[in-house]
Amino acid sequence: MEALKERIIADGVAIGTEIVKVDSFLNHQIDVARLDEIGQEFARIFAGCKVSKILTVEASGIAIACMAARHFGNIPVLFAKKTAPNTMTEEFYGAEVKSFTKGTTSVVRVSKKYLCKEDKILILDDFLAHGEAALGMAELVEQAGAELVGVGAVIEKQFQGGGKRLKEKGCWVESLAVIESICDGEIRFL
Amino acid sequence: MEALKERIIADGVAIGTEIVKVDSFLNHQIDVARLDEIGQEFARIFAGCKVSKILTVEASGIAIACMAARHFGNIPVLFAKKTAPNTMTEEFYGAEVKSFTKGTTSVVRVSKKYLCKEDKILILDDFLAHGEAALGMAELVEQAGAELVGVGAVIEKQFQGGGKRLKEKGCWVESLAVIESICDGEIRFL
Repeated sequence: MEALKERIIADGVAIGTEIVKVDSFLNHQIDVARLDEIGQEFARIFAGCKVSKILTVEASGIAIACMAARHFGNIPVLFAKKTAPNTMTEEFYGAEVKSFTKGTTSVVRVSKKYLCKEDKILILDDFLAHGEAALGMAELVEQAGAELVGVGAVIEKQFQGGGKRLKEKGCWVESLAVIESICDGEIRFL
Repeated sequence: MEALKERIIADGVAIGTEIVKVDSFLNHQIDVARLDEIGQEFARIFAGCKVSKILTVEASGIAIACMAARHFGNIPVLFAKKTAPNTMTEEFYGAEVKSFTKGTTSVVRVSKKYLCKEDKILILDDFLAHGEAALGMAELVEQAGAELVGVGAVIEKQFQGGGKRLKEKGCWVESLAVIESICDGEIRFL
């Protein structure tokens, strides 16, 4: 998506060699019109896959998943939780996820009620970096015996290897903007 | 919103006298079509208020804010963060928020870059219970010197007093479904 890359160049902030900050439009302040285009693009890519549900993880992924779901005919969105609220009383699937950005490890959970073996799941998220979140979500899908259609990321930091790890597990991975390197404040796309 | 109340009756689960669980369509699995109607209703209520930005807090609020923003002419959404990621390097406004559901206290933060004194802010969230989250967000708006147009909640648990606390502070509060009591598994609306 050329418009997305231009936006990342214009508004993204490169920090060191690992981080690109896009909190002006993607994961703190949200540009809803841009997100709508992103959702439309995911719907175009995964058209014909009969996706029954979009799986994401709180927090930023929720916006992307909801805006995309509209273009998949309003299919349900399911977001994995990083903490177990006291309202999650029934059984859940859980997978460990390390966040390199926050320096924490958490368990992502989804209620067994909302992930079934009949589901055809598309995983969507804002970033694909080391792949921990996506691999955790893929594990939830596997636990449920559901089918993983693919993984879509808005921005992939290719040099952190998450895309490669997912592909090695046989996942179809589609990222709308793939960053090859971040160096001296410059973001280089593939 | 009658359709919302009917959905809460049909799919909501009353737990004890304090909790109504709506994770089948609002805060775990998300019914995007229903959320679109909810967003449309907020836009109808707050039409003419020249809202410049919707403020919410992660996680469930993000879905509601994004779906609503479309009906306000794609204004930006800003979601307060409950943890400080290492990408939040600039100055931020912060306010303490207690979560009665999760039994924790956290600081909600927004970057000073995205909340300005020229802003006319609408706060949206899934639940209005004790009002802690909304009061915390109102404090962020106040710190920025911005104008708080109003507070919109999808579901208000009136008996927990959050609406009253906000109104005592001079806030305009609009809730789409107001629960008067939860008793013996029965949800009673106002």
